[in-house]
Amino acid sequence: MNNKNEMEKYFEETLSFWKHLNKEEKSKLLNESRINSFLTGESIYAGQTNCAGLFLIKTGQVRAYIISETGKEITLYRLFDRDVCIFSASCMMKNINFDIFVEAEKETEAYLIPIGAYNQLLKDSVEVSEFTNQLLASRFSDVMWVMEQVLFMSFDKRLAIFLLEQAAIEENDTFYMTQDTIAKHLGSAREVVSRMLKYFSEEGYVKVARGKITILDQKKLIELANESNK
Amino acid sequence: MNNKNEMEKYFEETLSFWKHLNKEEKSKLLNESRINSFLTGESIYAGQTNCAGLFLIKTGQVRAYIISETGKEITLYRLFDRDVCIFSASCMMKNINFDIFVEAEKETEAYLIPIGAYNQLLKDSVEVSEFTNQLLASRFSDVMWVMEQVLFMSFDKRLAIFLLEQAAIEENDTFYMTQDTIAKHLGSAREVVSRMLKYFSEEGYVKVARGKITILDQKKLIELANESNK
Repeated sequence: MNNKNEMEKYFEETLSFWKHLNKEEKSKLLNESRINSFLTGESIYAGQTNCAGLFLIKTGQVRAYIISETGKEITLYRLFDRDVCIFSASCMMKNINFDIFVEAEKETEAYLIPIGAYNQLLKDSVEVSEFTNQLLASRFSDVMWVMEQVLFMSFDKRLAIFLLEQAAIEENDTFYMTQDTIAKHLGSAREVVSRMLKYFSEEGYVKVARGKITILDQKKLIELANESNK
Repeated sequence: MNNKNEMEKYFEETLSFWKHLNKEEKSKLLNESRINSFLTGESIYAGQTNCAGLFLIKTGQVRAYIISETGKEITLYRLFDRDVCIFSASCMMKNINFDIFVEAEKETEAYLIPIGAYNQLLKDSVEVSEFTNQLLASRFSDVMWVMEQVLFMSFDKRLAIFLLEQAAIEENDTFYMTQDTIAKHLGSAREVVSRMLKYFSEEGYVKVARGKITILDQKKLIELANESNK
């Protein structure tokens, strides 16, 4: 399958509005879209300074986060194969006035629909507008989940949830991640993560080595993750 | 001016899509919409259990908040005259999976566009969809602002910002609000608010009486509100 056909197949399967476009619109979108590659750790989108358009993840893994003046971070959501990155096109939405950053957590290939091409469709098609709406609503729900975690959950519960998620993403009970990176995902400090991992490790829930974590007692972590909130 | 004419004038001025509706759609929307009154403290919307439709604030003041299993609250945003409450129609958006609560902070009159009527328009009109998008983006921005406050700002700064906002809303340097209510707005505990107000009061920034706060040194509070984040 050549690149153009592959892109068309991907668009057809990923974009709910694809079937509502006419032949000309489809061909224009395919001609204007490009595939982009990102290395692990590479920035895909950095606030509203570079409003490239919509990134559609073909393969890989990215995370969206916010960052304070002093460099404190928290992960808002992560995107995987076939997810669409809406905030890289946030300049098309007048009322978005915050800066989200997106970076590749693994080697990532993504199709880019340029902002001009997307905007044209958005203006004319109720289905494209509906698609945008649903994306926005999904990310809003992701962010509300993080907000509820930060506000209402104790840190041991949040860390348990994060470790279980990470093992699920990696499909492996052992994964490589520094305590500093965990702190950035959770909007916390390395020292706090370190102290809690020490406790988890003393209780036999996990084994911690340099930059490597192994889940030993998944059942206990799930119990902790499901405990009532404070 | 009779009620119907008044409603039409309000819709014309508030709904960006109004001018794009045809005569029949306009008349249908006016016929199906109703005016609702809420007393101070009355619930307008309580999670996804009662998906009434879109509330358009005619006069009054409402707040949207989330609440934990144990009753801890935080205010996400407040709406005033001519603002539109989108989450009271959140059932129309498939991907919203969190519960927001909305209550009147002052006596409030609001037009209700029933969910059925709005959904019909949303399906057919790219302008209504765009309007929905922009509302969602606005509330998303509000929530991100709260998130950044919670994560990145010290509590003295957050309290200073809240007191200044409240005085601006009331158009008065003295306003009535209990420490418990402030705690619920800020997602904190009464004790924490009490301690910080004591400090503000010792420094001469505010005067605190039972259920009443007076800003004495606005300049100092503004300085505190504009300090660099942690």
